[in-house]
Amino acid sequence: MTIQRWEQQAQKGRDLLNNSVPKKWLAPTDQLPPVTQKNVLDFPRKSGLLTERELRITEQSATDLVSEMGKGNLTAEEVVVAFLKRSVLGHQLLNFATEFLADEAIARAKELDAFYQKSGRLIGPLHGVPISVKEHVGFKNKTCHTGYVAWVDRVMDEDAHLLQLLWKAGAVFHVRTNQPQALMHLCSENNITGKTYNPINRTLTPGGSSGGEGAALAFRCSPLGIGTDIGGSIRGPAAFCGGYGFKPTSGRNPMLGIHVAAAGQEDIHGVVGPMGPASIDDLELFQKAVIDQEPWEDETSLVPLPWKNATPKKDMTVAIMWDDGVVRPHPPVTRALRVAKEKLLAAGIKVVDWEPYKHSYGWDVISALYYPDAAGLQRQMLRTSGEPPLPLSDWAFSYGRPNPLTHHETWKLHCERDTFRDEYNALFKTRGVDFIISPNYPGVAAVMGESHYWNYTAIWNLLDVPAATIPSGLVVDAKLDALTDEDRKYVPRNEADEREWRKYEGPERYEGAPIALQVAGRHFKDEETLAAARLVEEVVRDGKKGPAV
Amino acid sequence: MTIQRWEQQAQKGRDLLNNSVPKKWLAPTDQLPPVTQKNVLDFPRKSGLLTERELRITEQSATDLVSEMGKGNLTAEEVVVAFLKRSVLGHQLLNFATEFLADEAIARAKELDAFYQKSGRLIGPLHGVPISVKEHVGFKNKTCHTGYVAWVDRVMDEDAHLLQLLWKAGAVFHVRTNQPQALMHLCSENNITGKTYNPINRTLTPGGSSGGEGAALAFRCSPLGIGTDIGGSIRGPAAFCGGYGFKPTSGRNPMLGIHVAAAGQEDIHGVVGPMGPASIDDLELFQKAVIDQEPWEDETSLVPLPWKNATPKKDMTVAIMWDDGVVRPHPPVTRALRVAKEKLLAAGIKVVDWEPYKHSYGWDVISALYYPDAAGLQRQMLRTSGEPPLPLSDWAFSYGRPNPLTHHETWKLHCERDTFRDEYNALFKTRGVDFIISPNYPGVAAVMGESHYWNYTAIWNLLDVPAATIPSGLVVDAKLDALTDEDRKYVPRNEADEREWRKYEGPERYEGAPIALQVAGRHFKDEETLAAARLVEEVVRDGKKGPAV
Repeated sequence: MTIQRWEQQAQKGRDLLNNSVPKKWLAPTDQLPPVTQKNVLDFPRKSGLLTERELRITEQSATDLVSEMGKGNLTAEEVVVAFLKRSVLGHQLLNFATEFLADEAIARAKELDAFYQKSGRLIGPLHGVPISVKEHVGFKNKTCHTGYVAWVDRVMDEDAHLLQLLWKAGAVFHVRTNQPQALMHLCSENNITGKTYNPINRTLTPGGSSGGEGAALAFRCSPLGIGTDIGGSIRGPAAFCGGYGFKPTSGRNPMLGIHVAAAGQEDIHGVVGPMGPASIDDLELFQKAVIDQEPWEDETSLVPLPWKNATPKKDMTVAIMWDDGVVRPHPPVTRALRVAKEKLLAAGIKVVDWEPYKHSYGWDVISALYYPDAAGLQRQMLRTSGEPPLPLSDWAFSYGRPNPLTHHETWKLHCERDTFRDEYNALFKTRGVDFIISPNYPGVAAVMGESHYWNYTAIWNLLDVPAATIPSGLVVDAKLDALTDEDRKYVPRNEADEREWRKYEGPERYEGAPIALQVAGRHFKDEETLAAARLVEEVVRDGKKGPAV
Repeated sequence: MTIQRWEQQAQKGRDLLNNSVPKKWLAPTDQLPPVTQKNVLDFPRKSGLLTERELRITEQSATDLVSEMGKGNLTAEEVVVAFLKRSVLGHQLLNFATEFLADEAIARAKELDAFYQKSGRLIGPLHGVPISVKEHVGFKNKTCHTGYVAWVDRVMDEDAHLLQLLWKAGAVFHVRTNQPQALMHLCSENNITGKTYNPINRTLTPGGSSGGEGAALAFRCSPLGIGTDIGGSIRGPAAFCGGYGFKPTSGRNPMLGIHVAAAGQEDIHGVVGPMGPASIDDLELFQKAVIDQEPWEDETSLVPLPWKNATPKKDMTVAIMWDDGVVRPHPPVTRALRVAKEKLLAAGIKVVDWEPYKHSYGWDVISALYYPDAAGLQRQMLRTSGEPPLPLSDWAFSYGRPNPLTHHETWKLHCERDTFRDEYNALFKTRGVDFIISPNYPGVAAVMGESHYWNYTAIWNLLDVPAATIPSGLVVDAKLDALTDEDRKYVPRNEADEREWRKYEGPERYEGAPIALQVAGRHFKDEETLAAARLVEEVVRDGKKGPAV
């Protein structure tokens, strides 16, 4: 059997990954849980490979870690070593990394500790916080393949702008994380480093395209991570993995040096944002650290809006979108919305129902605008190396029209997009609604390979409004989420509705999965949306924070 | 001779205009200056058709008019009548209007007067200010043809967003103004209402595409006007006509309801902004009145940046760009820059020279991005009616590549555009320069039909930075601006340089023309740029304001 050229190239990417794994922290293979074990979250504790102190460190929020380092109770070095150790175990079980940065991260942490020793103060708001980074965010002198075999030899000249800012704020980058081929699956599989698993239930995907980040946050491999999102790629993984994610309005967070095949395409703007296991506070810590540095001073595509302090307001009006009118959510998702509504009402917050406005039309617009060139560049990337397209790449490419759009068709879609944005914005106002709580996905998570319906998240990309994912605190329950007789009689409204509804045979398929909520606000109301998400979580979870599972 | 269909359609547009002219204010034809008389600025006074009070009203700034109305010294009605009377005379001599709105304007002014009588206060910051409006800014229930015969029957459903805001601020719309075919000449001629003339010298164009506005401001037909600009269409006319114009950063001023053939094209964003005869203060009055109403609340393409008060700072550093490295400015333009430099230095302001950065490359990028479809939509608009393309339309269309760009070529140009923006922005910072003073055009104005070189203004559109045009206070001088022996020996660097240099046979060709300056600032530093322009004017003109001529 001959090994094809693309396989040799893909092997380079795997070699890079394998060579970067700090071997001393690997669990002996015979101690690993059986591959049939779905939930592996308890492994760090059960394995005995992390000390109690390391377990405690890795289960703290970024905000708390900074605070402890500020008091001298923790060093940056022990923090990053703890997360590296946990990341190595996580990677063995989940295949979430594309490259470990152990030596650099430890050296950096030592520098930070020296700075603290000398000055008695932290270097910045993210002093010593280990941050995991989705692979296509470029690192100086490191490969950046974006999930394409064709780019496996591509080495970057400089750090992405975002990384430069996080570095100045004191961050430590310890691991780079997996993403799907062509960056357009709500799942994370490519022909280089393969498939990433969800640690809560390894028959489920951690979501995508920031799925390496999803797995990492659920397993507590990092207290903060960087994802990107053009249709749900931050919020899907945050939801599937029981954590937190924030998709800002475009123009807030710096995008320079984040690499995609279709650079310069601006019909729909992808954005970068934070993900984490612990709290909305941590996402805000990240946002504030970045935007306080005025990234628009160097990246002129950004908008000069300082990060404001926004306090959650109990006099806000939130609307619940139970169903987008296209695909019915699965029973556990609906249950979480119901619980949310009850608790918000009980807390004295005004809650109304949200009648979705042309979500099906919205999908027609955004899906056409994802690929005005009929995914020509993405397909070309695959042809260049000869790597085969994965099924979910074919699925995503099929969103585009069969042939490239003309300029005039594209411009007409721009007008439709902008009109839709204005109309939807006006609805918020005429309906007196500040925020919309909705599902992130028809189900709690997708079974591996089954993540097909994006529009519970993509609609907010089309509208370019901020949206945060939070855990509801609830998990799929064998009894509460069993199909009722009425459920069994449900007559799907269309093909997608039927496909997605069929995937819910019952709670067993999604055993243990957390149930997430999504909170969307108006254009550029990023701070207010995060503040509202914090308040919603506080109310719905009776003050609890952190993952549901 | 048969009249072609397009000519019948074009006649409709002329009929609309002619029917709208308030006949009672027309000057008898035999009292008009001879067509050979170049400068007609003195006609309102000499004709005896305006009262002293009307002459005084029409020579005041918008800011002063509002102040006088606030004190009860003037009524909105007498103000708009004065400007209407002057506009009728101006139109007879310059053909600057596409439609008079006399009855509506007077009715509106009466309403404002009634409001003031009753409440004792002004309705808003633009109470009673007559504003002239470029034709392609849509008016409810009125034709909007954008200079295309094909659109001569097109009636708008609603007012442009900008007009709605100005209305709320108290404005009175009294006249709509001319623009060129396809909106892409630095001149103002179309097949419907014909050609507009520059009142300072009728052998010169008032510029374009907001050329109706240029002529109107020079003749004092309105104290404030609305222009649009994607390559110099506000600043060219302001410069050629001795007035003031401001091109803001895109995303500040509302664009909804401003109609162009290529709606939805967003490779280079056209912007709308104020023009006027009197002062930078008036432009700021306009900007503040609009942006204080938070237009982003309804038009989500806008950026939620409140209008800041910016005071001019004498510790700023301004750079003079003497030449863009492509086309040498004519002697009077260079003289005005020299005078500016001397006076700024004498006033203690730091002045350095600006080495242009790749302006020729910048032109290659922006000119390709004007027409990714090879001007397909614009040509189609002409074919639809059968109207012939005018020479300057062919000239502009030729900027596009012969065939439509592919999506990939377009996206590559987007990347080049953004990189160029970041590089240029970095140069401001590394060179320690706050603002750049430059020509608006190679010459003081273009002889009718000769306006070919845009890149002294278009470069700032490519960079999407704010730029203001101000009068230098100087006019072309037969002695000071005569060609020197050295000038005569100038060896042009390229074809464009030769073409433009040859147009300066000597000062006679541009007799009486004012010499303008352009002040450009950094992205989104709109307030600071206007403030700097105010200070530069104050210093260069020893405190004088208003047109140079």
